[in-house]
Amino acid sequence: MSDPRMLTVRPEPGEFAWTFGGAPPVARITPGTVLDLYTEDCFAGRVRSAKDLVSGVCEFPYLNPQTGPFHVEGAEPGDTVAVHFVAVEPARDWAASTTVPLFGALTATHATASLQPPLPEAVWIWELDRGRRTARFSARDSAFTAELPMDPMHGTVGVAPANLEVRSALVPDAHGGNMDTPEMRAGVTCYLGVNVEGALLSLGDGHARQGEGETCGVAVECAMHTVVIVELLKGLSTPWPRLESDTHIMSTGSARPLEDAFRISQLDLVHWLVRDHGLSELDAYQFVTQTVESPLANVCDTNYTCVAKLRKEWLPAGETHRGTHTRLREIAATLPRPEPYVVL
Amino acid sequence: MSDPRMLTVRPEPGEFAWTFGGAPPVARITPGTVLDLYTEDCFAGRVRSAKDLVSGVCEFPYLNPQTGPFHVEGAEPGDTVAVHFVAVEPARDWAASTTVPLFGALTATHATASLQPPLPEAVWIWELDRGRRTARFSARDSAFTAELPMDPMHGTVGVAPANLEVRSALVPDAHGGNMDTPEMRAGVTCYLGVNVEGALLSLGDGHARQGEGETCGVAVECAMHTVVIVELLKGLSTPWPRLESDTHIMSTGSARPLEDAFRISQLDLVHWLVRDHGLSELDAYQFVTQTVESPLANVCDTNYTCVAKLRKEWLPAGETHRGTHTRLREIAATLPRPEPYVVL
Amino acid sequence: MSDPRMLTVRPEPGEFAWTFGGAPPVARITPGTVLDLYTEDCFAGRVRSAKDLVSGVCEFPYLNPQTGPFHVEGAEPGDTVAVHFVAVEPARDWAASTTVPLFGALTATHATASLQPPLPEAVWIWELDRGRRTARFSARDSAFTAELPMDPMHGTVGVAPANLEVRSALVPDAHGGNMDTPEMRAGVTCYLGVNVEGALLSLGDGHARQGEGETCGVAVECAMHTVVIVELLKGLSTPWPRLESDTHIMSTGSARPLEDAFRISQLDLVHWLVRDHGLSELDAYQFVTQTVESPLANVCDTNYTCVAKLRKEWLPAGETHRGTHTRLREIAATLPRPEPYVVL
Amino acid sequence: MSDPRMLTVRPEPGEFAWTFGGAPPVARITPGTVLDLYTEDCFAGRVRSAKDLVSGVCEFPYLNPQTGPFHVEGAEPGDTVAVHFVAVEPARDWAASTTVPLFGALTATHATASLQPPLPEAVWIWELDRGRRTARFSARDSAFTAELPMDPMHGTVGVAPANLEVRSALVPDAHGGNMDTPEMRAGVTCYLGVNVEGALLSLGDGHARQGEGETCGVAVECAMHTVVIVELLKGLSTPWPRLESDTHIMSTGSARPLEDAFRISQLDLVHWLVRDHGLSELDAYQFVTQTVESPLANVCDTNYTCVAKLRKEWLPAGETHRGTHTRLREIAATLPRPEPYVVL
Repeated sequence: MSDPRMLTVRPEPGEFAWTFGGAPPVARITPGTVLDLYTEDCFAGRVRSAKDLVSGVCEFPYLNPQTGPFHVEGAEPGDTVAVHFVAVEPARDWAASTTVPLFGALTATHATASLQPPLPEAVWIWELDRGRRTARFSARDSAFTAELPMDPMHGTVGVAPANLEVRSALVPDAHGGNMDTPEMRAGVTCYLGVNVEGALLSLGDGHARQGEGETCGVAVECAMHTVVIVELLKGLSTPWPRLESDTHIMSTGSARPLEDAFRISQLDLVHWLVRDHGLSELDAYQFVTQTVESPLANVCDTNYTCVAKLRKEWLPAGETHRGTHTRLREIAATLPRPEPYVVL
Repeated sequence: MSDPRMLTVRPEPGEFAWTFGGAPPVARITPGTVLDLYTEDCFAGRVRSAKDLVSGVCEFPYLNPQTGPFHVEGAEPGDTVAVHFVAVEPARDWAASTTVPLFGALTATHATASLQPPLPEAVWIWELDRGRRTARFSARDSAFTAELPMDPMHGTVGVAPANLEVRSALVPDAHGGNMDTPEMRAGVTCYLGVNVEGALLSLGDGHARQGEGETCGVAVECAMHTVVIVELLKGLSTPWPRLESDTHIMSTGSARPLEDAFRISQLDLVHWLVRDHGLSELDAYQFVTQTVESPLANVCDTNYTCVAKLRKEWLPAGETHRGTHTRLREIAATLPRPEPYVVL
Repeated sequence: MSDPRMLTVRPEPGEFAWTFGGAPPVARITPGTVLDLYTEDCFAGRVRSAKDLVSGVCEFPYLNPQTGPFHVEGAEPGDTVAVHFVAVEPARDWAASTTVPLFGALTATHATASLQPPLPEAVWIWELDRGRRTARFSARDSAFTAELPMDPMHGTVGVAPANLEVRSALVPDAHGGNMDTPEMRAGVTCYLGVNVEGALLSLGDGHARQGEGETCGVAVECAMHTVVIVELLKGLSTPWPRLESDTHIMSTGSARPLEDAFRISQLDLVHWLVRDHGLSELDAYQFVTQTVESPLANVCDTNYTCVAKLRKEWLPAGETHRGTHTRLREIAATLPRPEPYVVL
Repeated sequence: MSDPRMLTVRPEPGEFAWTFGGAPPVARITPGTVLDLYTEDCFAGRVRSAKDLVSGVCEFPYLNPQTGPFHVEGAEPGDTVAVHFVAVEPARDWAASTTVPLFGALTATHATASLQPPLPEAVWIWELDRGRRTARFSARDSAFTAELPMDPMHGTVGVAPANLEVRSALVPDAHGGNMDTPEMRAGVTCYLGVNVEGALLSLGDGHARQGEGETCGVAVECAMHTVVIVELLKGLSTPWPRLESDTHIMSTGSARPLEDAFRISQLDLVHWLVRDHGLSELDAYQFVTQTVESPLANVCDTNYTCVAKLRKEWLPAGETHRGTHTRLREIAATLPRPEPYVVL
């Protein structure tokens, strides 16, 4: 490897992490490192055909395998790790979605408990066409098929949580984790507050595409070949995960009930405008009220996730997160395009 | 008036309705009628400068004045009224937003009750430029101003509710009402299930623009000059308000907690695909999961409102709501452009 | 009737009200009137055997028939009506409970919407023994029976709501209504804030007994013979329904999600200690925290209801609600015991 | 120590655990062991006077110190640990309660986020009289004092969680933890499902008394001298913590929103009646509906906790949890009364 700041990680089965926190780092990286990663799908690759029901082939809690964690050198509580997504490319030419008993928004769950029997379990295999950038849906009960735009993203990216905790990779919270927002796509920078020395960053749960809310609980799940640049912002705290694209800044909140996720994300966006753009709290509250887009991320996981999204061109002048997104975007443009990595 | 199916209604103070249900109709209209309407802003026009605090100038419950209700001839429970928005144009060159004590998403409220004192009360007057299609925000505590796209819409449109009830014009529920979704703009058709003879349709609460969620509880409120075509779909039931644009179908749900509003809207969209597009329930659940957009409407009113939105081009073939949207869209294109109606 | 302040009302079918607000008064009464009432059960008496499924015999929205409303002379917005329950006695020797499709806490509902099919519909007929004060449960699927203490109460008592609204008798809110708390038993005084001239008080929905939360949505429903004394407290406002027994003061809150019902009831209790017992807000917050009992009322209706209950003997000195409970309790003791009124 | 099954543990500062899971066991114990324990209060003993504000003297996340964890020999996932509370006695003659910024039910929090400033921070020192079994409240802002019954309990008892997680001692969930129910008092047996080998049982967070809901977030917190008997039920699973007293069986649920905590606890109680008392699901649903008491535990922690409580005398015959409660109760009666352990 000629570039000391480029690291390729393609975990074998048995080399994934299943939690945020609590797993030993697979590597120590310096800020600025480019990670060329393989991530397995949320099923650990075990759902491969219509007969592979989750309850039959998956083994709880071994879901949402994480590639990582990476120990970011110098990262300490109170700092922020920036993860710029250079590329997110399906690593298979198919993807899978399923229903899972007592999981999803339109069914009783273990928490929204009821006496009703679970919905039927089913699998949909989606065909991915990386050239045409499409994902093909095939109905199970009719001849209908639909070719939809591919929009690859990561459901899960996060760091070790605060408060001495270790959380399942299925959980989204202030440390990031399983936020399941379609906004986590190539071209975006994700800011995560550091809670433990080294941050312990990991990611996984690639989706070829996903609706907002992840209604049935499962997206178009696929293995990914993903390139990110990891940067460290010393002395800058980030209480809840934030995203930045070329056009938008975005705050997230993850909680139950869903209105609390909304409140967290909107308040964080208000605080963002106050800290970096010089508005008073009330002016920011008013400005956000009239300009925010509020796409849901997930309404199925252990916490629900909301995104509060604001168009940069409308903002008062002011540098945010030390100009990191712009800088990483520029670096990304100079990187050699990685050879596609594809598995079966 | 040469066209018997065109009706102009410009209510004077004292001629508005304040509820859905319970108010006598201002007119009986036949299906197909074009309504040329003036709607007053949510403050009943009483907030006109930065010193007009809501708690001082407004008189509860006289908020969200409704233009109407209109008795739609032939409408009976089990039918659907279609309201096609031909034009929604600000009727003033300014609009107002405010904070309101114990109202909004980032404050305690009468329901999310706390011991904390309310946030400060404030008013922002927005300048509207109908020619440039912009709304100008001016910060109160700094020199910042921003010219934002105007995107006029109605916060409130609805019919008399079911179950013998009368609901305040501030409430969104299955009868429509104060849903506060930015999707309720010109070019869209809104479908409302009829609960009482004549439907008793009314609308109001115009916004020059609004973010998703209406975070502080108040949008860029302004009087509107609005043209709609009202149609009646006999024998077709619509349990929750639906919208249709040229590009999307949209279901809504209004409830607390917010996840229930989400569940209602997503389930309605699933049922829509089943009834009109021939998918099985599980296939529709899967298809919606991967394609839906889920913008929040309001997270501040007595019920919260979610929208579930799906791109028509991706749908299986199938006519929806008897092709009403397309037909009304065509009729709208033939209507003479109404003379702008502007007040002080 | 020798006592001009005693009024007997035994409505015939067709003489019940189905809403709070919107129904004409059946009588005008002066403060101090003793009402000797018959109330029909929530099913309007139509569920009489195990084969009478609600979906078959009941007609929505004709549920929870109200005896009343009574126009209380002199009652104006800002006053409080006190309703002292002298006697609540089953008017039949049987009662009925049921499951109702998509209603109850352990099933999906129209709001907590899911794709799962509803639970089976069933009826349980309970035998009441007024002499032994028992209600006998008989299992449907086994030989088990249980003789439980009778604890008669009213699920519904309320006045016309504020904000020009009319609410179904199935709804609990600030006007009272379908709170479904077992605390609404003989010996208790209920305080309700007046929203419209005359208050328009009504009650119904008797239960021979009920668990806390009314889990399946339906209690041991029965017709009641109930005697109340109605008093008027001029110039005293009561934002949320309160109850007073010989031993406890109780605040209620009705909202969704359930934590908001809790917040409302607890905050009202804090305010009660501040207004009538001279504690500071923070001291009252602390005192309530360590002394309150918080039994759930209903977790199945359109709003959920919480009760916050505090033992009077622990309170700082201070008269509450003008000593009304004690006074009405004394009057109640002097009333002749009414002849039992029993129907089939 | 003559009895090999008796173990006394009095941790020094630095010897407490702060999580469920993730902490090494302080001892291995055989089933049947009697533990004679000292538990420190939730503030780690740092709030000792009215000037010791939590934000000043406490160090997050070092709250709710746990005595333990104990490795129960032979305990494996799928088993149940039974913890019988023989004695729970305050180990100081005073206790402390406080407000904590952005914590509690009647304030905005980090999740129910708002722009309002936090409530004032305050401390109340309570006098405990172990002889008279009382706890004396002294108001801060007036001369009012009240002598309330002491009712000592543990806010926190739990085992290591499932899913490879480590949870803060402030969290209640399926593993138990910070449930904060006043029902966890002497004479009660708590059943906890085992998730990891050895179970890793710990407890702490003693309260001299507490209202239902722990409204301000903090009870009458005190160090405790507590004796428990720990038993192991092989091959018996317990999905959510259960309690058994001489008179009642109790299920718990911990979740947000609060209605989900209710649903979990009520469904578990229904399942209990089905498994151990032979009722069908629908009969159990009906029986629970009419008999359950539903006292709230906490409405302030990261999850809210509900209790569903049913009087044993009303139940169909049937042994529950292998008769463990009765047996441990008998053993407890034979134990020598421990010498009181009191600290400053």
